[in-house]
Amino acid sequence: MPDIINDWAESVLARDRRAIARAISAVESGQATGVALLKRLFPRAGGAVVVGVTGSPGVGKSTLVEKLAGEYRRSGWRVGIVAVDPTSPFSGGAILGDRIRMQSLSADDGVYIRSMATRGHLGGLAPTTHDVVTILDAGGCDVVLVETVGVGQDEVEVARLADITVLLLVPGMGDDIQTFKSGVMEIADIFVVNKADRSGADRVEQEITAMLSIASRTDSWHPLVLKTVATTGEGIAALRQALEQFRAFGAESALKEQRRREHWRARLLELLRQSLFEKVARERLRDGSIDRRVEEVLGGRRDPYSLVEEMIAEFTGESRKSE
Amino acid sequence: MPDIINDWAESVLARDRRAIARAISAVESGQATGVALLKRLFPRAGGAVVVGVTGSPGVGKSTLVEKLAGEYRRSGWRVGIVAVDPTSPFSGGAILGDRIRMQSLSADDGVYIRSMATRGHLGGLAPTTHDVVTILDAGGCDVVLVETVGVGQDEVEVARLADITVLLLVPGMGDDIQTFKSGVMEIADIFVVNKADRSGADRVEQEITAMLSIASRTDSWHPLVLKTVATTGEGIAALRQALEQFRAFGAESALKEQRRREHWRARLLELLRQSLFEKVARERLRDGSIDRRVEEVLGGRRDPYSLVEEMIAEFTGESRKSE
Repeated sequence: MPDIINDWAESVLARDRRAIARAISAVESGQATGVALLKRLFPRAGGAVVVGVTGSPGVGKSTLVEKLAGEYRRSGWRVGIVAVDPTSPFSGGAILGDRIRMQSLSADDGVYIRSMATRGHLGGLAPTTHDVVTILDAGGCDVVLVETVGVGQDEVEVARLADITVLLLVPGMGDDIQTFKSGVMEIADIFVVNKADRSGADRVEQEITAMLSIASRTDSWHPLVLKTVATTGEGIAALRQALEQFRAFGAESALKEQRRREHWRARLLELLRQSLFEKVARERLRDGSIDRRVEEVLGGRRDPYSLVEEMIAEFTGESRKSE
Repeated sequence: MPDIINDWAESVLARDRRAIARAISAVESGQATGVALLKRLFPRAGGAVVVGVTGSPGVGKSTLVEKLAGEYRRSGWRVGIVAVDPTSPFSGGAILGDRIRMQSLSADDGVYIRSMATRGHLGGLAPTTHDVVTILDAGGCDVVLVETVGVGQDEVEVARLADITVLLLVPGMGDDIQTFKSGVMEIADIFVVNKADRSGADRVEQEITAMLSIASRTDSWHPLVLKTVATTGEGIAALRQALEQFRAFGAESALKEQRRREHWRARLLELLRQSLFEKVARERLRDGSIDRRVEEVLGGRRDPYSLVEEMIAEFTGESRKSE
């Protein structure tokens, strides 16, 4: 087993596309080999810039990501693309169409594209998105573009994952920008007004700029506002320059370090929380005891607070006795 | 202590406004008395209908909630309102304005209004929102309206919390409804096209109806689509009727029972996960050991997967030895 894992990890590091694909599948399906691989790959990851690209459906994220990938390719960068798809029955068709369109890039050996489903139809990155980024990073990508539809929790989670977050907007959003998506506005490092050939693009740009002038950020970066027409490629080179500018700023100001520190702190705690639950509680709940307790709560016979206290006492007590 | 808690709980059950306010504060600030109170109150809660009201900023949620509360009051219902505010520097002002406007209701002793901040500026209900609803429920409210701004995770979480979810939209949203907020579309039981005196209201209504005709739901309810002009009160009586219709359907079809079962299952697991972490890990992490481990990960000296395995082994091992 260790030999197999070693060979496999070496193949990923040697940029073998099939080894990378198999590694991602192992991680996504929760196989033990996936974790074993990640342990080998992690020390070799960290070189890639991770760029989150988010925005409401229909703003042109896939097209922009495709063009941006092309821009990086022209300088010989290796590009990973992780496209997080909502599993919605409403938009599934349209988004799948985008994915297929983007597959034009996959003839290029320097681009690796992976689509992932969201955790459920309510949004949120898949729990393994971080790990897939680690694999692509170790697999030689210089930049990994993580595209998420601005649904539910995705946009917030992508900002936690990425080194740089790009938020796409389009003219004619109806509601005033001022009141639109307040939480999301604060997570963006670079604002892109896409479809800038439409009327109203200047107004959107001005509104964002005005908003930024009164915003308080927890870091020292002043977000950039750009205009693009992704379909024609207009503004894509400037976007890449802006990304470089942020990267240089991040490196100089220790902002990159600070973000990665926050990222790994949150991620370690999250992994710990999840593993603790798996180790202590999961097995004991297999017998349907959670369902019995749900019925007690529903029937009004017990309150959930006392029930949970009892379960914790039982679980941590039992683990003692079994020693 | 038990006597004090008993008296306090009795005062809440007797609908004493100050006792309710103090109970909410105790729960929000994480005091032990809060949990002790909740244990007493929980068996007396469950009578209220919990209605989630969500939608993007600017669609008129606060005005609609205010008018809907007035509608319930006319039939003598007692109404709780939990308004979840994002702590955004961008929209804070506007939303605070709404809140103040809604305070006109607070002269009415049959209405209890509570504003809660979101978990952070990235959205998400406060962890105690469920508990505040339980207190208002036990405190005699017949209906609790939970209003959340459609930012980040709020809208998804409110659907998990509520018996009924109402999604507000407005005409002129720019992007096609078809691609807008796909995840959110699926959590709504009742769609409200507010500001229906604006042009385009019929089109929005038709688009939602068309979308619903191809949607697959996990339950047997067919969502209703209504039009309102919340500022004038137009359509509010019909909205209340629609809520009653859903409630009757839920009771007959066991949908209410099914939702509450799913709700409590998720909530018990979440409480369990959190309590387990608090009990086993929190104390051990006080010494800054998490920060040391973050530095090891950042420095590339260790991978997070092995680190977490070690921590789990140490934590569960230590708890053995200490017995």
